[in-house]
Amino acid sequence: MQRCSPIETECVFSHEDLFDWTKNLLVCVGVPADRAQVIADNLVAAELKGVPSHGLSRLGIYLKRLDQGLLDARAKLITLSERPSALSLDAQNAFGHAAAFEAMETAIEKARVSGACAVTVRNSTHFGRAGYFAEHAARQGLIAIVTTNSAARMAPWGGKQSVFGTNPLAVGIPANPQPIVLDMSTSVAALGKIMLAEKAGSDIPNNWALDAEGRPTASPSEALQGSLVPIAGPKGSGLAFVLDVLSGVLSGAGFGREVGSLYRDFTRPEGCGHFLLVFDVAAFMPLDSFKRSVSSYANLVRETAPIDSQAPVLVPGDFEQMVEARTRVTGVTLQVALRDELTSLSSAYRLDFPAPISKT
Amino acid sequence: MQRCSPIETECVFSHEDLFDWTKNLLVCVGVPADRAQVIADNLVAAELKGVPSHGLSRLGIYLKRLDQGLLDARAKLITLSERPSALSLDAQNAFGHAAAFEAMETAIEKARVSGACAVTVRNSTHFGRAGYFAEHAARQGLIAIVTTNSAARMAPWGGKQSVFGTNPLAVGIPANPQPIVLDMSTSVAALGKIMLAEKAGSDIPNNWALDAEGRPTASPSEALQGSLVPIAGPKGSGLAFVLDVLSGVLSGAGFGREVGSLYRDFTRPEGCGHFLLVFDVAAFMPLDSFKRSVSSYANLVRETAPIDSQAPVLVPGDFEQMVEARTRVTGVTLQVALRDELTSLSSAYRLDFPAPISKT
Repeated sequence: MQRCSPIETECVFSHEDLFDWTKNLLVCVGVPADRAQVIADNLVAAELKGVPSHGLSRLGIYLKRLDQGLLDARAKLITLSERPSALSLDAQNAFGHAAAFEAMETAIEKARVSGACAVTVRNSTHFGRAGYFAEHAARQGLIAIVTTNSAARMAPWGGKQSVFGTNPLAVGIPANPQPIVLDMSTSVAALGKIMLAEKAGSDIPNNWALDAEGRPTASPSEALQGSLVPIAGPKGSGLAFVLDVLSGVLSGAGFGREVGSLYRDFTRPEGCGHFLLVFDVAAFMPLDSFKRSVSSYANLVRETAPIDSQAPVLVPGDFEQMVEARTRVTGVTLQVALRDELTSLSSAYRLDFPAPISKT
Repeated sequence: MQRCSPIETECVFSHEDLFDWTKNLLVCVGVPADRAQVIADNLVAAELKGVPSHGLSRLGIYLKRLDQGLLDARAKLITLSERPSALSLDAQNAFGHAAAFEAMETAIEKARVSGACAVTVRNSTHFGRAGYFAEHAARQGLIAIVTTNSAARMAPWGGKQSVFGTNPLAVGIPANPQPIVLDMSTSVAALGKIMLAEKAGSDIPNNWALDAEGRPTASPSEALQGSLVPIAGPKGSGLAFVLDVLSGVLSGAGFGREVGSLYRDFTRPEGCGHFLLVFDVAAFMPLDSFKRSVSSYANLVRETAPIDSQAPVLVPGDFEQMVEARTRVTGVTLQVALRDELTSLSSAYRLDFPAPISKT
């Protein structure tokens, strides 16, 4: 077994080890085992897919908020209203990952009978990758649409103040051999990329963000004082609004500037909302024929003559699946700084952080 | 009553007159009165909202395809499968406007009971503005998501051949005093704008389209030989794929390059598909509180400090509503060339095209 030496900046871990450690840590801090399983799976899946912004780097802030009573490890979900194809839930500040997963499980059950089901969740918290829940439903033969709101960091098109979160849209589609999962934010660039550029002392493209006066900026620090820019001008701005209406307004959660910041506001719970909608492919056509058609369509797209012969055309989720196919074998790379932070999170619980399986 | 003189290029008509004439013409060519009503309303609403690309200019091609047996004025919709919240329909080449409207009416009825309903339509034809159906549902207290596919004119991101239509996404949201309606294509620019630039002999921005070799082009004629570009790079490309899976694959219609062209293929019906999904706000919260919250949120967005003090921030549909508020009073402007084309369409039926109400 090799170890990271002090001069290395990254090391590689087994995803099973990371999963076990994460799950055990969550249990130690009071999360019921079934929820700890879902949260750990959500976070480690992000690492496996090459989306570390939604992976283990979030654990520290979750535990901090838990410690301050802004997250409730054991909160029970309350059903506010219910019909055969509609459900409104109150998460009571449970981990968003667990709340959305339980919401999705119920939605799937109901949609298998009625054909479709929409679920809202209020009083929830950061839920990780939206695509996680969409993929879960798609693996069971349902098409899923998932969104959430988050603290305001993005200006509406033509405006110079943040009103919207980077409200993501995920769509999961059953396909062979794997579901196809679209998972996109409505901002041109992720906040995390701007934070990385600031750390690295490098400029950002000037279509990513506005400074505090609403002017396009190439300076990451000005961008962090200002606001993100929506994709596709008024279209992305409209999409962010609509997704917030679904996850924030329809759920009875906070919306717009009301949503609390995960990182910057320790005076109250986030109070965010989620929206999950599924419909059962088998209600429309045999699942096998649907999967065959989707897969042959995806292949048609992939076979489109590429502009750059080195960059084949992809369908949503292809990149993440390629990364996951590799990392499942070779392991998950973590920065040593993150490894050290995670190690300190579990130090109080006699829970050793896993040893690396190799150097990068 | 004033008339257009030969040197004028535009004149203004009463929208009621245009509606009556359109409806009567459709009845003359064999469309049942209730369907003629819906089709005429869809087309004239586009004119009222300042979206003439989806208005009366389409009538000529509809009647041509009807004459050639590629559209069926009286085709009955067939139910292929049904559950409380799911419905699969075959439009048998009926006017898409009528097929989607009937699909939406049934979806609304079912969602009022179960909470949500998803409907697919196969073997359909061009249905006009997607936002028309979303707005119709939103006026009745339901949130609606509507999409359709269309003939391939757009390349996937990174590719140089058309695979996708400009597959639109419409979302209707109940609000005061009017529903909020997002209605966006997944291409950077509408095909119609490129055709107009070609007629005018002007260049287009070089992020709108690719030439036949997949290179960005500022030449509208090269663009028309090539392909449109999706919004927001891989995100818009992924969205176009997902919307085609919903409207094309899940419905059992054509998808990708299989969808027939409205204007360029007279060997077969279009064979396109639609997807309509509604959920009943009242299943989640009282409709009045929802509408109040949405409207106050929309106002918050509109009150965002604008970058350009002359260009206030808008929410989806604001622009179309402003245009409609004006045109309902002042009338609808048509090009004389279109007026002449429409006049000739009805000449066989002793149906006079309405007189203009004023010059522009």
